[in-house]
Amino acid sequence: MEDHLKGYKEKSKELLSRAEITVGDTVTIKTYDKEITGILMPRYESADKNHIVIKLKNGYNIGLRTDKIQSITKIVDSFQQSSTGYKIHDSIKNNDKKAHPKIALLGTGGTIASKVDYRTGGVTPALSASEIYASVPELANYAYVEPEVVLKEYSENLNPAHWTIIANKIKEKVTSGEYQGILVPHGTDTMHYTAAALSFALQNLPIPVVLVGAQRSSDRPSSDAALNLIGATIFALKSQLTGVFVCMHASLADDLVACHLGTRVRKNHTSKRDAFESIDGMPIALIRGETVELQLQQAGQKLKKRDNNTDGFVVRPNFDRRVVLLKYYPGFNPKLIAYALESDCRAIILEGTGLGHVGKECFPQIRKAVESGILVFMTSQCIWGRTRMTVYETGRDLLDIGVISLSDMMAETATVKAMWALANSKDVKSAAKLMQENIANEISMSIPIS
Amino acid sequence: MEDHLKGYKEKSKELLSRAEITVGDTVTIKTYDKEITGILMPRYESADKNHIVIKLKNGYNIGLRTDKIQSITKIVDSFQQSSTGYKIHDSIKNNDKKAHPKIALLGTGGTIASKVDYRTGGVTPALSASEIYASVPELANYAYVEPEVVLKEYSENLNPAHWTIIANKIKEKVTSGEYQGILVPHGTDTMHYTAAALSFALQNLPIPVVLVGAQRSSDRPSSDAALNLIGATIFALKSQLTGVFVCMHASLADDLVACHLGTRVRKNHTSKRDAFESIDGMPIALIRGETVELQLQQAGQKLKKRDNNTDGFVVRPNFDRRVVLLKYYPGFNPKLIAYALESDCRAIILEGTGLGHVGKECFPQIRKAVESGILVFMTSQCIWGRTRMTVYETGRDLLDIGVISLSDMMAETATVKAMWALANSKDVKSAAKLMQENIANEISMSIPIS
Repeated sequence: MEDHLKGYKEKSKELLSRAEITVGDTVTIKTYDKEITGILMPRYESADKNHIVIKLKNGYNIGLRTDKIQSITKIVDSFQQSSTGYKIHDSIKNNDKKAHPKIALLGTGGTIASKVDYRTGGVTPALSASEIYASVPELANYAYVEPEVVLKEYSENLNPAHWTIIANKIKEKVTSGEYQGILVPHGTDTMHYTAAALSFALQNLPIPVVLVGAQRSSDRPSSDAALNLIGATIFALKSQLTGVFVCMHASLADDLVACHLGTRVRKNHTSKRDAFESIDGMPIALIRGETVELQLQQAGQKLKKRDNNTDGFVVRPNFDRRVVLLKYYPGFNPKLIAYALESDCRAIILEGTGLGHVGKECFPQIRKAVESGILVFMTSQCIWGRTRMTVYETGRDLLDIGVISLSDMMAETATVKAMWALANSKDVKSAAKLMQENIANEISMSIPIS
Repeated sequence: MEDHLKGYKEKSKELLSRAEITVGDTVTIKTYDKEITGILMPRYESADKNHIVIKLKNGYNIGLRTDKIQSITKIVDSFQQSSTGYKIHDSIKNNDKKAHPKIALLGTGGTIASKVDYRTGGVTPALSASEIYASVPELANYAYVEPEVVLKEYSENLNPAHWTIIANKIKEKVTSGEYQGILVPHGTDTMHYTAAALSFALQNLPIPVVLVGAQRSSDRPSSDAALNLIGATIFALKSQLTGVFVCMHASLADDLVACHLGTRVRKNHTSKRDAFESIDGMPIALIRGETVELQLQQAGQKLKKRDNNTDGFVVRPNFDRRVVLLKYYPGFNPKLIAYALESDCRAIILEGTGLGHVGKECFPQIRKAVESGILVFMTSQCIWGRTRMTVYETGRDLLDIGVISLSDMMAETATVKAMWALANSKDVKSAAKLMQENIANEISMSIPIS
């Protein structure tokens, strides 16, 4: 027998049964201080028994304590709702493929594809790409989404070999010419690193590639998965731009998704839903409901218009892991640079202080690295702003030694780009040149500071 | 013969001479679109000849192009101005020591004590603590400032041994009982590291210690040195709080200085004057003109009221450099952890992703480190938010291995604190315990995230 109140039990189940409500129905719930309308969501077997979870129209789920509910009324029966509700697998099948633009959804893992184990309070990876689709039925209103599982990893376990797998899968989807856009649900821990990697690997894309994550797992009452996925889908379909982007909550509000450039975005909070921020610039677009609001283009940015033409599309999916990122701090042991050399590295990204400095104690080891043919690049741990190594003595000394200043390239993006540049250049000299060229908006023209 | 128009030449000198104006006079300058009143500042010999520099009442210097100046009028002669103007050394001498509270100004170097070499465009350290005082004559309106040069280093060259020197000098000044506050002009690159170090080294301070820097050197038209120094002085005198703080521009506006807790502040922009930000909280105070506006105290913060009583004052000025900070990224070579062990380190601070993760490829080396008796701590490269290692499998695995989660302690503060904890504990076990205690508002009680 099918359970029409999946996961609900005791008081919450009793309350719903009495009102003849099943999962997927649109309901209105009154509490002592508010009235809320939305779709009743299923709960996992081990979910706590005191909450009823409703998906609001903006895609955001909220949990209501049963002891605060004064009344609950069915507004629309789940069987009368078009392409929403719990029976989403049926609605995918019934979806008119010709009526909707086609989007590829390439699952990689992460919170967006996780569920909470309510016994332990921990989160484990569980949902497949198709289950994500099932948990956000509204997607079917906008697109015919074709899910495929590429990886099942928390993003902290991803490494450059995984970027190659993802890039090659995207290449396959793009060159098929079947899709209007590609969604890549991804763990948030390293989503910005993957976004940068794909920005270099996939050049001259005919359709947009949008990475999307969730800070709270899809089955949690406060999940941001739905709004982010819907925002990413709308951006992929409606924006006239192409490239590699990251779509996530733009603020604490639940109606605004920001779309960031893949090389210019950073996870700047461990837990907030609007953790992702564009660095040294605005998000490229805001998605408000079904509207894509393009932001003012920034000086020097090059963005490509969507042309659905695969002719110029170039894929360079390889990365050379032999890059070491070292963050400087007072007391930094210069031996770490020596060890980096011993570990067969080809490039060092220094995350220096201020305008691009490290203490003079490091100079001899840096000189040794440069003389060994290792590329040494400078970025700033300040995160915002650009390195300018001509201003102070320390910077000028480092330039003399042979350190290359990367201006406003983020340390994370620089690390990824160095791996890509080394794998796609005939020698380190060409790689050094490539590092200083703007490939995917990762570096902007240096503007002197007065 | 004394040059009353120090540094001015050609057209700018001609303009000033004709109006019988000398350095230190209060003047009103009219241009085609504005009218500005302030004190005429001296210029360095090699300064460009096309600008006249005026210090406004808010302490901010501006440069005006001579070809835009329509008229220039003397309002107050430099000799009639009380304790302002260029002849500041005289006014220090004439200063009535009993009429003004006494402040110690301990120069360490950095931009605030630098001047631009206008031939090369570069900045070199030049000014002594007394020259800083001379360049910000307004300080004499508030305090009898007693300058002393402790160090002359760009802050990127400071290491834990310098922190000990500064701490011991502050101890000497504090225990003399002569001062109402201590100002520490400091290079901005690592000012937040020194501020954290002093926060641990100087406990139960009877008077406030305020670090202050400049993003633009003191002799530049757009220098922020004056406003920051005045703001720091006003905070040191008027605030009823004590502890270690950092005072810097609060915004792009020129009338607001923010005062940050020494363990909760970070340089978040390479060049902006409001580069310093409080992390996971508001600045402790805003200084607007001569008013100190205390901000709402945050949950769990412990702040001490000034009591000018040296009885409980404790100085623990030593640091153990054998701490390695490693930032994680996809492709991170676990060998770096092995090398850290080889380099005689006693603690590793991991700057992990998200809630406090590193890839599982690192687990064997981390286990080896823990088994060797090395302390391994986890912080987050997100910067904002706190580590929570019980949420995901990766975090739980790392906890099982023996990694210690540092919650909302910043990676920079954690690195400094580990150096201090190791130097001030009888063994690593006690150091680990100390790391998890809140000593100087560096860690706040963990609040579960829903």
